[in-house]
Amino acid sequence: MKGSSIEVGEAMKGASPRKGVIRGLSIMDFVLRILAAVATLGAALAMATTNETLPFATQFIKFRAQFDDLPSLVFFVMGNSVVCGYLVLSLVLSIFHIVRSPAVKSRILLVAFDTVMLGLITAAASAATSIVYIAHNGNTGANWFAICQQYNNFCERISGSLIGSYIAVALFTILIILSVVAISRN
Amino acid sequence: MKGSSIEVGEAMKGASPRKGVIRGLSIMDFVLRILAAVATLGAALAMATTNETLPFATQFIKFRAQFDDLPSLVFFVMGNSVVCGYLVLSLVLSIFHIVRSPAVKSRILLVAFDTVMLGLITAAASAATSIVYIAHNGNTGANWFAICQQYNNFCERISGSLIGSYIAVALFTILIILSVVAISRN
Repeated sequence: MKGSSIEVGEAMKGASPRKGVIRGLSIMDFVLRILAAVATLGAALAMATTNETLPFATQFIKFRAQFDDLPSLVFFVMGNSVVCGYLVLSLVLSIFHIVRSPAVKSRILLVAFDTVMLGLITAAASAATSIVYIAHNGNTGANWFAICQQYNNFCERISGSLIGSYIAVALFTILIILSVVAISRN
Repeated sequence: MKGSSIEVGEAMKGASPRKGVIRGLSIMDFVLRILAAVATLGAALAMATTNETLPFATQFIKFRAQFDDLPSLVFFVMGNSVVCGYLVLSLVLSIFHIVRSPAVKSRILLVAFDTVMLGLITAAASAATSIVYIAHNGNTGANWFAICQQYNNFCERISGSLIGSYIAVALFTILIILSVVAISRN
């Protein structure tokens, strides 16, 4: 009896730090998800609420720039909103992983969704970046003019909103690697 | 003695199909990597080799369209080339995983690199897509004209080359999920 109780004690000692590491990873996962949700929400709001009306107008045309003039910026707002919604929903599973460390199948599910969402947020950020680049620099070969000389505030705002999206891209990459490490330790 | 040998036999029976599943996943990983490498190579070549010269010219200007007129398309070619190179190099680790199924640390390393490369290839594909969209449709708000009315062959070629990149995006997503399943089974 004494021998077996020592064995149990040793087995628990072996499992405890391992479980502690997984729990630590799960808590970090939870915090990073909140940060990423805030970043994408900020990016979507900054882009969606920007508009600039120039102080002059012809009889028929009012010079006004809004994000929905450019399809890539609409995709940016939609992509960031969807990813933000997903991140908020995924917090439920993240809390479940803090409480129940040995869960593996739900972690695999989360990695699969995270990977798809990494693709979506990267695509949104990248599509908007290439348009913002053209807006700033124009393109002489294609005869596309830089619109940022007129719409200065609009351009500053849409350039700034990209940052939130790129922060989310970096956080998603870390999230996926953390989840894989947690799965490998189970 | 007899009892213990039966136990060993059962343990091996339990390990064998599991090892078989992991080996199957590793072989699928190897095949998908080759497919993705071919897709990115095709995309990079199709984009890089396209150029169209219009059949008329002024005294000073020759109307010629090439991928390096547009920075996003240059990024597309570079991104696809880098990812293609990475995929060829990663075949070494993939073969190692077929031979040595229980390797976990090298699988985690591969997932980490795959995730970064998924980000790169998605960014390249998406940046090019938003430019190709403008080239096809133009944008009235920003006064950017559709250049595809003049450069018809050029536009068809750059649109087609996007497909290879998107195939690679899908394959990378599958690769990451396969690796995670293999890690969870070890």
